[in-house]
Amino acid sequence: MDDSIRQTVEQGFAKQGFMQTLGAKLTKVGFGTSEIKLAYDASLTQQHGLFHGGVVATLADNAAGFAAYSLMQGGRQPLTIEFKINLLAPAKGSQLVARAEVLRAGRRIFHVRADVFSEEDGVASLAATALVTVKSTQSVTEIESRGTDA
Amino acid sequence: MDDSIRQTVEQGFAKQGFMQTLGAKLTKVGFGTSEIKLAYDASLTQQHGLFHGGVVATLADNAAGFAAYSLMQGGRQPLTIEFKINLLAPAKGSQLVARAEVLRAGRRIFHVRADVFSEEDGVASLAATALVTVKSTQSVTEIESRGTDA
Amino acid sequence: MDDSIRQTVEQGFAKQGFMQTLGAKLTKVGFGTSEIKLAYDASLTQQHGLFHGGVVATLADNAAGFAAYSLMQGGRQPLTIEFKINLLAPAKGSQLVARAEVLRAGRRIFHVRADVFSEEDGVASLAATALVTVKSTQSVTEIESRGTDA
Amino acid sequence: MDDSIRQTVEQGFAKQGFMQTLGAKLTKVGFGTSEIKLAYDASLTQQHGLFHGGVVATLADNAAGFAAYSLMQGGRQPLTIEFKINLLAPAKGSQLVARAEVLRAGRRIFHVRADVFSEEDGVASLAATALVTVKSTQSVTEIESRGTDA
Repeated sequence: MDDSIRQTVEQGFAKQGFMQTLGAKLTKVGFGTSEIKLAYDASLTQQHGLFHGGVVATLADNAAGFAAYSLMQGGRQPLTIEFKINLLAPAKGSQLVARAEVLRAGRRIFHVRADVFSEEDGVASLAATALVTVKSTQSVTEIESRGTDA
Repeated sequence: MDDSIRQTVEQGFAKQGFMQTLGAKLTKVGFGTSEIKLAYDASLTQQHGLFHGGVVATLADNAAGFAAYSLMQGGRQPLTIEFKINLLAPAKGSQLVARAEVLRAGRRIFHVRADVFSEEDGVASLAATALVTVKSTQSVTEIESRGTDA
Repeated sequence: MDDSIRQTVEQGFAKQGFMQTLGAKLTKVGFGTSEIKLAYDASLTQQHGLFHGGVVATLADNAAGFAAYSLMQGGRQPLTIEFKINLLAPAKGSQLVARAEVLRAGRRIFHVRADVFSEEDGVASLAATALVTVKSTQSVTEIESRGTDA
Repeated sequence: MDDSIRQTVEQGFAKQGFMQTLGAKLTKVGFGTSEIKLAYDASLTQQHGLFHGGVVATLADNAAGFAAYSLMQGGRQPLTIEFKINLLAPAKGSQLVARAEVLRAGRRIFHVRADVFSEEDGVASLAATALVTVKSTQSVTEIESRGTDA
């Protein structure tokens, strides 16, 4: 995989203030794939001390976006049009690991699957699975004027 | 609406570490409805300085969960089984407002719609709309042992 | 609404062999809206004699596609990229009525909501609600070569 | 796998009028899995002569329901609460093959993945992938009175 693409993707991730707030790390970027890890913290929980569903969904959405980003060219950038996530099991443990894979890359539309695993005592279990539709966009100006159809 | 139910719902929200991390406020709780507001902050952004899609999804999911919670009895608590969200427009502005309404409340399953509006200069625009399936659960023990089927 | 657009939409519906198989009728076409009706028949049922969930989903998807079609120009045609449907109640009764409304029309991407009502003894109840993402496409050639990203 | 369960599942499929209308066959039933095949026919098409998206969605939903059914006990029956499907490529060819696998089986809630492949000249390509939430229900009476929460 082209290093310049990897750098572009990693720089995009670094620019997301929300990923820093969560403490999430982009641990892998491949050709149409990505992996994000997030360590447990009480600041990420729902009322029972489990990882909040919104945190799980955020990782799935973001892993999908960066997996698609790795396939984009000409300076185009990823924008999630919509996503769906099934929460299979309580997301508890020492960390979450989200892995995404582009199922089909079109000219502008990318269909991506993302799974989120919760790890506890070295055992990983599938906590959630998502289907994410990502669009490539030309510029932030387009995004602001045209929204998710940029 | 019963004040004790409102208190229970508000206490549940207060127990979510992630809502405090985001700075989100539960601004309304009705009979099968809820509203959550979140002021803009750079710590909540994606790479273009817009609200991160994960933040938008988190508000939609959570508003739905608390709207369902307001209809639960016997100490049962909400757990999201799955949700789907369409991101219609860039979520930018001074704050996000998520409003949820239970479309159908069953014995255990609640079908909920949640809309997220972005407000800028006093103008609100629909940024996202979600369909959320919430289940009522008996206890955190059940949640930990049975996951989203508790 | 331009009559030529209405005719184009109605002709598109008439070309769908599957709508004839179901016996579905396109009963209304507006500017970004549509309505499809389908009378009950044993050939449309699941194991309990209710309308099959696939029939309900088909009407929601199709109503959404034609609602989006009514806003397309330059001979572009609708193609569903993805959809999600919540089945709230058993779809039983004398007929189903699907109503769709475009929530946001972009250059190529259309976010559409579709509700399906079941009517019995003159009473309509919400049987399902869907969120559908539709893309406008240039031609069938594009569709065959590029799939849902045409 | 218990033959009596297989028979129960196959009998349930045979009772679906809509499957006969489509001409769909339940070709495999395993422990938490199922496969449905459907030969191409002009009666199943959208305006470009491709398989209608509603047909694709119906197969995905139904394969998921029967995969879950294979794991149900005590005479309980499957009911789809909701599903989401991404249409990756045009569904064209001589037949469709839907394969479903239960990702997590709870007491009442089953999270199921279903893929639909289109076959042409012996080559199968992924046309769609779906996530389906199925609930087990006690009886048709419950279904009629309580809907998808039976």
